[in-house]
Amino acid sequence: MLRGTVTSSVWSTKRVEGIPAGAFLEVELDGGARLIAFDVLGSGIGERVLIVQGSVAASWFPAQKSPPIDALIIGSIDETV
Amino acid sequence: MLRGTVTSSVWSTKRVEGIPAGAFLEVELDGGARLIAFDVLGSGIGERVLIVQGSVAASWFPAQKSPPIDALIIGSIDETV
Amino acid sequence: MLRGTVTSSVWSTKRVEGIPAGAFLEVELDGGARLIAFDVLGSGIGERVLIVQGSVAASWFPAQKSPPIDALIIGSIDETV
Amino acid sequence: MLRGTVTSSVWSTKRVEGIPAGAFLEVELDGGARLIAFDVLGSGIGERVLIVQGSVAASWFPAQKSPPIDALIIGSIDETV
Amino acid sequence: MLRGTVTSSVWSTKRVEGIPAGAFLEVELDGGARLIAFDVLGSGIGERVLIVQGSVAASWFPAQKSPPIDALIIGSIDETV
Repeated sequence: MLRGTVTSSVWSTKRVEGIPAGAFLEVELDGGARLIAFDVLGSGIGERVLIVQGSVAASWFPAQKSPPIDALIIGSIDETV
Repeated sequence: MLRGTVTSSVWSTKRVEGIPAGAFLEVELDGGARLIAFDVLGSGIGERVLIVQGSVAASWFPAQKSPPIDALIIGSIDETV
Repeated sequence: MLRGTVTSSVWSTKRVEGIPAGAFLEVELDGGARLIAFDVLGSGIGERVLIVQGSVAASWFPAQKSPPIDALIIGSIDETV
Repeated sequence: MLRGTVTSSVWSTKRVEGIPAGAFLEVELDGGARLIAFDVLGSGIGERVLIVQGSVAASWFPAQKSPPIDALIIGSIDETV
Repeated sequence: MLRGTVTSSVWSTKRVEGIPAGAFLEVELDGGARLIAFDVLGSGIGERVLIVQGSVAASWFPAQKSPPIDALIIGSIDETV
């Protein structure tokens, strides 16, 4: 998994079929790279998150046919006290 | 997902069987790297797009046997006003 | 596989369903990069470990539906005498 | 997909079972990196080619059990006039 | 596929279940990066080898359940005369 911080939302109206309910969020990974991850947790700007990549992101969805998603936010990282 | 800008078309007449209807487009990713993505949306030069990579790109196609495609444009990014 | 050293634990209370029993551990790979790997072996801070990435990490789990895990610690590296 | 130029053949007599008919070709990718791709098109030295990577390369083969191939030349790039 | 040279063995006594018979070998890839590949060919230190990565490495094994292996040596590269 990779760790990063949500920086913004990405909107795509013209898109292929099969994208589930959720949001595309831009995440700045620790180290500085950026990617777009799919979010089903309602993550907000500035939130620290864990991301899985690859077919595992698509397989998480319950649909019989996996959606075209290759990065998924699987959790919010707890603040360390 | 990765984000980039379509820069040109790529043509391949001599190719393996099983490539579906659509276009090979060169995309310059944010950051400067380039890859060739498959497009079924009619994306044009200069269009900002979202791309999935890996087996997820192939699995999107409805055919029983997934095509030899490892990068797919899944959406056009809305202009931010 | 990649080789690295466990550096810390990562906690995530707000997370998607389907994450199995185990721990998220931060690992510093040989070379300096960092990733978060899932651990079912009880690996400790400072332990040298082997990690698999990608869908193989998820497929290891016995559940019928693979969990959203893309990096798994598969072994502890024996100290060389 | 990645784009590159075939630079040489690679021969492996001692190898695992299950590798199909075809050739291992070294390809220099645009940007300078090199990888070994499997070729079923009879591509020659100097030819410009499109390559898929990952499980998609193996899934293309019609055999019931996918071969241990993770990069496949899927087409020759047409010369632009 | 990637090409590299076997540099050492890696031993792991404490490990997850499901790892098949064979050896973990450290390989220095052309270019200088290092990874740990699984070997079933009896490859030796200094041998030049071809490696597949990802789920394809696991799928090669005949077991019904793929092992947690994401890099496999598929052949030894013939010396060029």
